[in-house]
Order: sequence, then C-alpha cells, then structure tokens
Amino acid sequence: MAPALTPALFAPEHHARIAAIAELLDPEPLTRFDDARAAALLPCAEVLLTGWGSPRIDIALLDRAPKLAAILHAAGTVKGHVDPLCFERGVRVSSAAAANAVPVAEFTLAAILLAGKRAFRLQRLYTDVRNYRLWWNEVPPIGNYRKVVGIVGASRIGRLVMQHLRAFDFEVLVADPYLSAGDAEALGAEKIELDDLLRRADVVSLHAPSLPETHHMLDARGLALLRDGAVLINTARGALVDGDALRSELVAGRIDAVIDTTDPEILPADSPLYELPNVFLTPHIAGAMGTETQRMATLALDELERFANGEPLLHEVKLEDLARIA
Amino acid sequence: MAPALTPALFAPEHHARIAAIAELLDPEPLTRFDDARAAALLPCAEVLLTGWGSPRIDIALLDRAPKLAAILHAAGTVKGHVDPLCFERGVRVSSAAAANAVPVAEFTLAAILLAGKRAFRLQRLYTDVRNYRLWWNEVPPIGNYRKVVGIVGASRIGRLVMQHLRAFDFEVLVADPYLSAGDAEALGAEKIELDDLLRRADVVSLHAPSLPETHHMLDARGLALLRDGAVLINTARGALVDGDALRSELVAGRIDAVIDTTDPEILPADSPLYELPNVFLTPHIAGAMGTETQRMATLALDELERFANGEPLLHEVKLEDLARIA
Repeated sequence: MAPALTPALFAPEHHARIAAIAELLDPEPLTRFDDARAAALLPCAEVLLTGWGSPRIDIALLDRAPKLAAILHAAGTVKGHVDPLCFERGVRVSSAAAANAVPVAEFTLAAILLAGKRAFRLQRLYTDVRNYRLWWNEVPPIGNYRKVVGIVGASRIGRLVMQHLRAFDFEVLVADPYLSAGDAEALGAEKIELDDLLRRADVVSLHAPSLPETHHMLDARGLALLRDGAVLINTARGALVDGDALRSELVAGRIDAVIDTTDPEILPADSPLYELPNVFLTPHIAGAMGTETQRMATLALDELERFANGEPLLHEVKLEDLARIA
Repeated sequence: MAPALTPALFAPEHHARIAAIAELLDPEPLTRFDDARAAALLPCAEVLLTGWGSPRIDIALLDRAPKLAAILHAAGTVKGHVDPLCFERGVRVSSAAAANAVPVAEFTLAAILLAGKRAFRLQRLYTDVRNYRLWWNEVPPIGNYRKVVGIVGASRIGRLVMQHLRAFDFEVLVADPYLSAGDAEALGAEKIELDDLLRRADVVSLHAPSLPETHHMLDARGLALLRDGAVLINTARGALVDGDALRSELVAGRIDAVIDTTDPEILPADSPLYELPNVFLTPHIAGAMGTETQRMATLALDELERFANGEPLLHEVKLEDLARIA
C-alpha cells in the first residue's frame, strides 16, 4: 500500500493488535513486488495486508509467494487489485468495503438533508444578493418533511442510507433487481421499478455498482423522467450516469445535483458543473478519509484475527461475486 | 398570520381537521386586529390560531376578545408575539417550537457531517483548481470517525441533535447549566463546562436560547479556546456569538464555520463571511420551511383538539418559562 496513507490508516492501537496476532515481516509497506525487498519477504508471507496504492496481485506474484493464503484488503474494491486467478488458486480475499460504506452513507444522508433545504443553492444566492429576499420563491420547493427519496441500488451503502433515513419523515422508494418487495419493506422502503422511482422521487440517490450492465443506467431518457426541481445525488460512480445528458439537464437548471463522483474522475476545466448554482460538486470525498480510514484497518485486522484463529472470514469476496459488486 | 404563508402551512388535511374540531370564524387570516373584520370576529373568538406574521397580542386586543381562552401559535417563539399580561389574564398559550425544532436539528446534523468531511471547503477548492490535488493536505483534518462534537445547550433542538448523533461514531459533549450529569449520560453525552467543551470539541454546535444571559456567550476569549481547524455551527441565534471576534477568527482561517443565523440577521454587504472558503453561510433557513411548516400546523391542531376536549395542552408556554426559553 501507499506508505503516505498508512499513518492515517493504522492508529497505534492497530499496530499493537498486529503484533499480538501475527508476525509482521516488515513495518514498511511494499509498494512494488519486483524489488529486492519484495523478493526477500514474499517467500515467507502467509497473509498480505493491502490498501490503497497496492500493486496488482497476479499469478506472477503468487509464484513468488508460495505460502500466501489470504489477501486482506484494508480498502474497498478488490477488483482492479486482485487478479481473478488468485481466487482460483485458493487464496482467500477479504475487502473492507463494509467499512468504507459508512462514511459514504453519512455523506449521502447529509447531502439529502441539505439539498432538501436547497441549502447549497441558497448559500450562493445569499452571497450573490447580500440582502433580504423571499428565498423560497427563487429556488425549487424547500423542505424535507414527507418528501420522497428514491434509492437506486440496495447495495451495502444503499442499505445504510435507508437505515439512516428511518430517523426522518421521508417516504423511501428503492429500485434494485435483486431485492424482493418483502426485503424492501424490511428496509422501510417500497420496491419500485427504476422508471417509476425517477418519476416519483423528490431526491434520487445512486448506490449501484459500476458494471457493464449499469453503465449509463441513468441516460437522457431516464433523466428526463425526473420531476422539475428533483435532486440527483451521486456518491457512487460517475459511469452510472450519461454525463452529457446530465450536463444538459443541469445547465438548463431543471434539476439540482450533489455530485461526488464523475466520469472522468476529474471533470474538464471548462465543465459548467463547477459553477452552476444548482450543483454541489465535490472531488470524490464521500468515502473513507482521514480518521475514517481507521475503520478499514480495524475491519482488516478483525479478519486477520479470524484467519489466525481458523475462523471463516466475515468479509470474504468470492470469485462469483466479482460480476455483481463494486 | 401572513396569508402568503398559509397555503404551505395548512395542507387540505389540516383544513378538514379544523372543520371537524371547531367552528372557523373566517378562513382568511387576520393580519391586523384594528380593522372592521377583526372588530366583528374577535368578540366571538375562543381560540386564536396564530403563526408567522401575526400582529402582537396585547391587553387592548384581549379587551376586544372577552371569550378568548387560548392562543395556539403554529410557529416557534411566542415571546415577541404575546404580551406577558395575556398569561396573567389566564389565556393559555401554546407554541409549535417543538415542531420547528425538527428541521433545525436535521440541518445541524447534516452540517456536522459535511463540515467534518470539509465538504464545503473542498467544493470551493475543487472549483478553484479544477485538477487533481491531494485535497487532504490543503484543508484541516478530514473525517467524522471518533471526532468530538460539543453541544452548547440541551434545549429541545440540542437534544434532538444529540439523539441523531447516536447513529454515528462521535464522542458527544454537552454544556448546559440546567442539565445534570446523569441526564447528559442518558442523552449519550458527557456533561462538561463550556470552556472545556470549547477546548476539546472538533465541532461545536450552538443550541442555547437568545437571552440577556446568553448574549455573546461565545466571545473572543471563548472562540480563542477552539482548536485549530475546529468547526463552529450556529443554527440558533447570531447574538450568542460576538460577531466581531468570530469574523477575526474566520478571516484568519483558524476555524471553519457553518452559519445560518447572524446578528444582524442579514450581514452587511461588505462582510467577508460571504466569500470566505472556510465559511458556509445560509440565510436563516434551518427552521421550518415549505412542507416542514406543516408539522407546526399539525402540532397546533393537536393542541386545538386537546383544548376542545378539555385536556391539558402538551406544548403550553407558561409565564415563568419566558425568561429561559427561546
């Protein structure tokens, strides 16, 4: 993993825990697998503790790490990071996506509440006019009471958001092909087809994984179904939305948006989204940052402890999951 | 009350309820008590249903409304609105402050979560640079995990905020001279003196009433106790904070702030707070707006029903409360 990130990821209590469970071959993270240090360490390694900035783990590496039995990733997705062949070799892989989901759900909840108050628009309007105005006449309808929130994707993050929403007076809809109506009800939500969700919701929040099947799942046709003044929140992945179509809707001012993820990841410098009064654009910060990354370290060390005790991993990723998860 | 606000305040279901409980003397709100319509209506009125924009209710009015027994205010504070002499005449007064507290607590929670992510700063930084940067090196420490939130005032709103905070990994401190350590513990918080709260908290949120005793309760000395990078949230009243001292701290960039209430209510056009990257300034929108005002109508009609049934009011304001509440 990237050495620059480890001080935030591993608190002193984490280092103490590693020492109690395992023999740490080297406290300095490897950043490549093809140098002399890696050549010395890999033959002994039974577990790799990985994180953001880890080099890709492929068959060539496995050949140099014959004892490797588990890869515990102290970060979210393992897709770009672990070659599928590793699973076939019997190496167990665990992800801290569940820990990374927590801050994303928190950010999403906060975005829903402030967007419902039109706070992002009103902050800028107030700065522009610097005087008394009947604000509520100059922005779309304000207020979170009895508004309809549509959750696209009952993923780990989508479920956490729905759990948070129970503390508020929202009507919650959820669209997910893998979710039953009964499971939706248990989550406090109504299962609904995506098109109907887009037509009914005051706020639409995306929580689907980025897969070939979900590429541009929100296209020009879908965006046109949104109500005037609706809020679109994307803390998932930019590729879920047709960026050109979204830009058109936003430039027209027909809908509001809170956008933390775009495709490409950094928008071109001439993108109108940077300045539009109806867009609150952030640079992919909803996921774990700062102290929040410690949750991922804790999860990875919980997994290390289970592995050391011969117990099943709680956050194991299986080969067959890869096609459906983020 | 102000007729412009009543369509948002009273939904059709509210009108139906009024008709079922009471005889509505006139569906058109009075906006003054000294015209011919008021002269005709007041002698018959047993209850006044009031709201934002209501004229002040004083002894002269009571003389013209001899049957008046209750004033049910479908809004927050009744202080500027009802003359204390009305209480002495035996008129019962009820306030919908409890319903107005709900959106303020929601806004505050959202502000805590997004300020902890430095989202308000990063939105502007991203727009300024429009390129990849190690954001976390250019703003104060990011992350909501295990951060310390200090609640100043265990008021109705302060308690709602603490209740919401239980769903997150915060350490919560509360300063309130009327709160016992045991009651604080029951709220999931640690009771602490204000100065110690200011020294320890990563986020300080104000929820005290605006009273002579709380005027500038956060002055230059208190603000100086805040940690570098701390966040101050004010969704209460501007007069709680010494505005000059706060401006100095904010211009210096030493702390961040989310400010919904200022003194004066509209800041001068040359105030630096409008543009500072570490300040998210909104025009007093945390309280009930749009659909959220319907909660206040519902509360007032609940009170009307209790009054009609001879039951005690649940949100009665007593003369002796006036010195301690907002």
